[in-house]
Amino acid sequence: MAYFENVDKIVFEGADSTNPLAFKFYNPEEMVAGKSMEEILRFGVAYWHTMTMDGSDPFGSGNMLRPWDRFSGMDLAKARVEAAFEFFEKLNVPFFCFHDVDVAPEGSSLAETYQNLDTIIVMIKEYMNTSKTKLLWNTANMFTHPRFVHGAATAVNADVYAYAAAKVKKGLEIAKDLGAENYVFWGGREGYETLLNTDMKLEQDNLGRFFHMAVDYAKEIGFTGQFLIEPKPKEPTKHQYDFDVATGLAFLQNYDLQDHFKFNIEANHATLAGHTFEHELRVARINGMLGSVDANQGDPLLGWDTDEFPTDLYAATLAMYEILQNGGLGKGGLNFDAKVRRGSFEAEDLFHAHIAGMDSFAAGLKTAQKLLEDRVLEDFIETRYNSFGSGIGKEIVDNNTDFHKLEEYALGLGEIKNDSGRTEQLKATINQYLLTVLAE
Amino acid sequence: MAYFENVDKIVFEGADSTNPLAFKFYNPEEMVAGKSMEEILRFGVAYWHTMTMDGSDPFGSGNMLRPWDRFSGMDLAKARVEAAFEFFEKLNVPFFCFHDVDVAPEGSSLAETYQNLDTIIVMIKEYMNTSKTKLLWNTANMFTHPRFVHGAATAVNADVYAYAAAKVKKGLEIAKDLGAENYVFWGGREGYETLLNTDMKLEQDNLGRFFHMAVDYAKEIGFTGQFLIEPKPKEPTKHQYDFDVATGLAFLQNYDLQDHFKFNIEANHATLAGHTFEHELRVARINGMLGSVDANQGDPLLGWDTDEFPTDLYAATLAMYEILQNGGLGKGGLNFDAKVRRGSFEAEDLFHAHIAGMDSFAAGLKTAQKLLEDRVLEDFIETRYNSFGSGIGKEIVDNNTDFHKLEEYALGLGEIKNDSGRTEQLKATINQYLLTVLAE
Amino acid sequence: MAYFENVDKIVFEGADSTNPLAFKFYNPEEMVAGKSMEEILRFGVAYWHTMTMDGSDPFGSGNMLRPWDRFSGMDLAKARVEAAFEFFEKLNVPFFCFHDVDVAPEGSSLAETYQNLDTIIVMIKEYMNTSKTKLLWNTANMFTHPRFVHGAATAVNADVYAYAAAKVKKGLEIAKDLGAENYVFWGGREGYETLLNTDMKLEQDNLGRFFHMAVDYAKEIGFTGQFLIEPKPKEPTKHQYDFDVATGLAFLQNYDLQDHFKFNIEANHATLAGHTFEHELRVARINGMLGSVDANQGDPLLGWDTDEFPTDLYAATLAMYEILQNGGLGKGGLNFDAKVRRGSFEAEDLFHAHIAGMDSFAAGLKTAQKLLEDRVLEDFIETRYNSFGSGIGKEIVDNNTDFHKLEEYALGLGEIKNDSGRTEQLKATINQYLLTVLAE
Amino acid sequence: MAYFENVDKIVFEGADSTNPLAFKFYNPEEMVAGKSMEEILRFGVAYWHTMTMDGSDPFGSGNMLRPWDRFSGMDLAKARVEAAFEFFEKLNVPFFCFHDVDVAPEGSSLAETYQNLDTIIVMIKEYMNTSKTKLLWNTANMFTHPRFVHGAATAVNADVYAYAAAKVKKGLEIAKDLGAENYVFWGGREGYETLLNTDMKLEQDNLGRFFHMAVDYAKEIGFTGQFLIEPKPKEPTKHQYDFDVATGLAFLQNYDLQDHFKFNIEANHATLAGHTFEHELRVARINGMLGSVDANQGDPLLGWDTDEFPTDLYAATLAMYEILQNGGLGKGGLNFDAKVRRGSFEAEDLFHAHIAGMDSFAAGLKTAQKLLEDRVLEDFIETRYNSFGSGIGKEIVDNNTDFHKLEEYALGLGEIKNDSGRTEQLKATINQYLLTVLAE
Repeated sequence: MAYFENVDKIVFEGADSTNPLAFKFYNPEEMVAGKSMEEILRFGVAYWHTMTMDGSDPFGSGNMLRPWDRFSGMDLAKARVEAAFEFFEKLNVPFFCFHDVDVAPEGSSLAETYQNLDTIIVMIKEYMNTSKTKLLWNTANMFTHPRFVHGAATAVNADVYAYAAAKVKKGLEIAKDLGAENYVFWGGREGYETLLNTDMKLEQDNLGRFFHMAVDYAKEIGFTGQFLIEPKPKEPTKHQYDFDVATGLAFLQNYDLQDHFKFNIEANHATLAGHTFEHELRVARINGMLGSVDANQGDPLLGWDTDEFPTDLYAATLAMYEILQNGGLGKGGLNFDAKVRRGSFEAEDLFHAHIAGMDSFAAGLKTAQKLLEDRVLEDFIETRYNSFGSGIGKEIVDNNTDFHKLEEYALGLGEIKNDSGRTEQLKATINQYLLTVLAE
Repeated sequence: MAYFENVDKIVFEGADSTNPLAFKFYNPEEMVAGKSMEEILRFGVAYWHTMTMDGSDPFGSGNMLRPWDRFSGMDLAKARVEAAFEFFEKLNVPFFCFHDVDVAPEGSSLAETYQNLDTIIVMIKEYMNTSKTKLLWNTANMFTHPRFVHGAATAVNADVYAYAAAKVKKGLEIAKDLGAENYVFWGGREGYETLLNTDMKLEQDNLGRFFHMAVDYAKEIGFTGQFLIEPKPKEPTKHQYDFDVATGLAFLQNYDLQDHFKFNIEANHATLAGHTFEHELRVARINGMLGSVDANQGDPLLGWDTDEFPTDLYAATLAMYEILQNGGLGKGGLNFDAKVRRGSFEAEDLFHAHIAGMDSFAAGLKTAQKLLEDRVLEDFIETRYNSFGSGIGKEIVDNNTDFHKLEEYALGLGEIKNDSGRTEQLKATINQYLLTVLAE
Repeated sequence: MAYFENVDKIVFEGADSTNPLAFKFYNPEEMVAGKSMEEILRFGVAYWHTMTMDGSDPFGSGNMLRPWDRFSGMDLAKARVEAAFEFFEKLNVPFFCFHDVDVAPEGSSLAETYQNLDTIIVMIKEYMNTSKTKLLWNTANMFTHPRFVHGAATAVNADVYAYAAAKVKKGLEIAKDLGAENYVFWGGREGYETLLNTDMKLEQDNLGRFFHMAVDYAKEIGFTGQFLIEPKPKEPTKHQYDFDVATGLAFLQNYDLQDHFKFNIEANHATLAGHTFEHELRVARINGMLGSVDANQGDPLLGWDTDEFPTDLYAATLAMYEILQNGGLGKGGLNFDAKVRRGSFEAEDLFHAHIAGMDSFAAGLKTAQKLLEDRVLEDFIETRYNSFGSGIGKEIVDNNTDFHKLEEYALGLGEIKNDSGRTEQLKATINQYLLTVLAE
Repeated sequence: MAYFENVDKIVFEGADSTNPLAFKFYNPEEMVAGKSMEEILRFGVAYWHTMTMDGSDPFGSGNMLRPWDRFSGMDLAKARVEAAFEFFEKLNVPFFCFHDVDVAPEGSSLAETYQNLDTIIVMIKEYMNTSKTKLLWNTANMFTHPRFVHGAATAVNADVYAYAAAKVKKGLEIAKDLGAENYVFWGGREGYETLLNTDMKLEQDNLGRFFHMAVDYAKEIGFTGQFLIEPKPKEPTKHQYDFDVATGLAFLQNYDLQDHFKFNIEANHATLAGHTFEHELRVARINGMLGSVDANQGDPLLGWDTDEFPTDLYAATLAMYEILQNGGLGKGGLNFDAKVRRGSFEAEDLFHAHIAGMDSFAAGLKTAQKLLEDRVLEDFIETRYNSFGSGIGKEIVDNNTDFHKLEEYALGLGEIKNDSGRTEQLKATINQYLLTVLAE
């Protein structure tokens, strides 16, 4: 059964053997820095935005009628699996990601929910046997159902906490079963609406306990995927505990969890926290905590998580620059946690949007790699900090000084000479690379 | 010599023996929760905003001509000390705070700068001998002079780093000499303008080394004041390393400094970071890191550090609620890191503004204390989380469970019942307290 | 049939004959400035938030099960009417407001939708016959249904435009039938997602035509209520044409519509546009365009329309100050376009939230009236601008001067003397009034 | 005398006869759409940022020591003129812009200020005789001096108002004398700090009067340049009256000034107001009010006017798209109201920064022109709105319908069919053009 047969013809129209898809810059087999684009970029499709979401927003009802929406219940869930793997194949992506409730409907009891999940997971596993597309990560949705109104692992109610634990236990079993490369924690309601009714300390302690139990259980069942925390500062709650990478790091250190987790960094979550995407990647990278990426973008003039498909070439280039500097993403990947705009409600748009995102990161990859090859920034930075390579600077870096020595040195200095940081020239250089690398 | 003689008459006009000042709510001797208001609130005047600043802004030159501005150089510095202590006395504040450059001008060499400082510090010390006003904290300004254009303890240039170390060394000696209760680090340019030219890892490592040297030196000279880091997310730099309390905590943990520092939390810095003032206080409090407060406020519709005098009674009440819960601020206090608006350029406004701030915190204190006495929020919260006091909840809190037990429990649950968080009712309650407590 | 019987007992528990409700500050019969509170405040309940909305948010499904939700379809619509009037009566509010789809479900055709509406409007009319609660305004929802994905009166598709016209035509007939005091236009998707696909000129021209047809039709049927435009800058669309009052005014002037419309000003829409609530009220007031108010509040740290119940006493006071200066709202009122937080999901919270809002505006009214009585701001402002009352200032105001005369005058001036604007003192004064007026 | 002799050698090092400057994309003589780049782009240097500004910011003192800073007073002013024309020539820009105080220091009286100005204007005029660089616009700085603390043409003090009038009178005479193509009004403090002390109506009335007097005086002296209002929402004041283009338009219409003014649109002011740059250009364009452009950019994560040199190729492309659609800027131009970052304090950076900006707009111009040639957006939009070209749509556009006819039509409709807006595909198309046009 084919859900996208006519659609993909439209999208890829005019394609030929040398350009089998509508991509302009992405070519999975093209080698960049000794690896194929596909190996470096490790793109993933987000099941929820592409297979499940219906286009509703706070002011509008669902407007995206998909071919599989003629089914309902478990039949719909199955049709979605079929459609998903058809989509993955046509788009030729190596990975996908899902929450439990994206793939199987909740039952009237937890036991029935488990049954529904089991049925669908068997089906997904069968599809994976003959597909190139693997599971980048799965997770448990602990924010949509009313029971999670006050949080899950930080719930005010112990029953909810237990329920959340059961969901994550099941999620880890699924991850193990499907060979997921990672397991993600995004605590959509792990935070507070108002401090007036919140015991922040107890909630965070409970969250720490929850993560330790998850670590223990993964070890018990032999799941060796990477654990990832996905920071987000706010929305849906007023304030979420995993505000940004630094906050997440403080939490992990507080609860002695830092060796068991890395971060899944989402571009739009970074901007909501007041950071650039590359800032969050850098903070994670230099702390050895860069795990994976949710590749999307926000609108800097809108104050909510717009989850747009990533098309900003600056962000894509600087993100790939961090990722290349990190030696790649390891088990991580670039998951398109992005949704087509509500006005882009046709099935065709799902292809256009993913192609837009993949092409942007391919262009970013090539530009970043060329910047690195030419050591454009590296040489500048090396020169800029070279006073720390000898003399008093080296003593500082070698922890071989103190305030007495530094004061003595400072008293002997004449006027200190600084050099320009050359921000404008560096920005112009990025532009020159962007506008010329792809043309080579 | 009197600088404010006529001014204070205007301000305090109509005052009498029972209300010697123009305050409506602040009475230093009034007892609240077993202590005098003065002991709890520990107000401080910020030397820079009140004695040094001239009203200039990015689009306007200085417009605040103070009585002492007829002097210049060291004479001006001395006149400011005289005026400062006159102001402290008239306002009857227990504390003040300063940066090195606020009190004494830089010389043509570091040695000369030291001399200038020594002269003024002697004079300040003499004034302190006969004044009730003590030094809450001092610090070194490492952001105004051009040499700090690329940072100080995170400078790209080892000479600047050494110079910064000398300044802090001197600052610690002054702190010791004047009996400062704290020493503050606000790294105005410890961050970056653009990642394109920045080695964030080296800069942060150097900052960690710097703090260790400061800790060592304080120990060496026997300075026992509290070390405080003051988080701010941005401005003047694009991104500052001490973004917020959580980020500062991660940094301190990373460099094994957490036992030597607490936080100095500024309201306007909190809001620039996307947090409420009370959020930052809470995060610090539950981590045992609440040290002191810079009492001001921002404008939520303006994106820069407006440093307004604090008049928002909600913020003042919720701040005092955290502080009371913390058992007070210990060595810390409420420093008015706040400047009169450029349009409030008369000397008289310095009094009005401080009175506005002191009255607001006095009202906040009394409201918060009444809320606590009545256990308005405490009882609500206790009930809200009571499922963690027995049964499965207690097992969770006692670390006496795992995913197996929790799943088994969850499978046995029927529909989970949650209770309303009552946000609106709690907000209305805060209003009722605000509007009635002061009238009692 | 009673939907709130047990609920209101809980809410109003402890009430007695002198305080029949749980209100602390609102008393409908209390006289303020020669009118009863009820006459001045003209509170309205928003049908959509209180009767229809289910608590869903972008990350969560509906969690508010109301007593009437055991019904469905037209039975549900009827049950909501019953419950609504029960709620209005218990809360004792003089007004309510609704969109067409709030009260009656859409049918499978426009004709059937009309029939559904007709049935419910008859029922509402009957209830209104015996209720004190009148219709402040109604409107047509032209943003929820998928057909309005690209706008309504600014749609890219003429069929949608015609459909929208039919809905407004029906809405005006309902307004006439129910004696609505106003008819509101909020163009939830009258704007654009991206300029890349948008003909802004054509869309605005079409909107202008639409409003003229509405004006003509109201005249034709003898509807004499006030037409109101409700500005909002963004959300759901990236950019909405009625960004704020000034933008709306430019639009109305451009299309020669300014004599037929006033503004319905929503507090949260003001803040999303970068303005204070009182700013938007002021701009409308001095242009003679202040029509009505959507009384809610946003969270200054969240970037979306949170539609919280209004509890900020500063905003309430300054809003009432503008409204009193405007001589009241005329046909307008204070509509609670506000929703209980998702965590406040119990029916009881609907009462708490409205009481919180009504009490806040009552407190604001009394404080504002006292400020006006005492001419606190008026006297200050009169003095501040008094140079325009004589001499060269009077010539300016009388249009009796030119650049020659002004230059000649300026050349004769010595140093110009300005006076402090006393921002801090005025803010402290507002605090003093807030904290003491209610206690009188 | 040469100020930049060594600097330009460094900047343009390696340049040769075919690429005489360090530009990669800008070539003044290259023809685009029938005109030379220089004719279309009409770049201007902002005297204040490039010749006068010293690098100070709210937390740092001036750090940019220019070659001309060895002079002071009128000698400094003269040296700046020499340096400016040397800079213009080396950069080969057709225009410059200035405020009165940028070029000549204020004297101790208005008369002396006039004298200073006269001296410098004579000198500038002489330089202009032999330079290709013309005056795009001049203006009067009415925000830096303390006298303007409460505004200028909206001052609370009639003396200030008169003084401001004198300054603008003089400015218009200078504009006439130097053949300025435009005269700009940016009201840096024409707004308010707090409504508590503000008579907004009187202030706006006075501003209207001021503009009428300016129009009259320009007519009187035969100045035929274009009058431009430059909107900015805030900073330095809390709220400025010319918030954005729409607000400015409402004001001009209110005071019957719309035929005498156009807008000077600054990118960073647009983003501070919550708009994209292209939005403001579009609003001005479709109202026939697009006059000129201040070409810079802000940082979407910083809340103040950063005035960065424009390097964002998306913004440059979409801006040039609007400008080309407008048939160019007429008398207007692209003034670089942009300052080098404080860290870019070397004279060399002034060249790098301008080259970065000019290259970005050159790339934007070529990309926009190619998009227009290929009718990429035009054809999409034409198709999208084609229902307004016939049938009911044409009746709407021809004002040939009413609510009766539209309702009748709507009742006859079945399900309405909409089409995707294709946002993602259009964004990908922009990327493809950006990455390939320059390589052609």
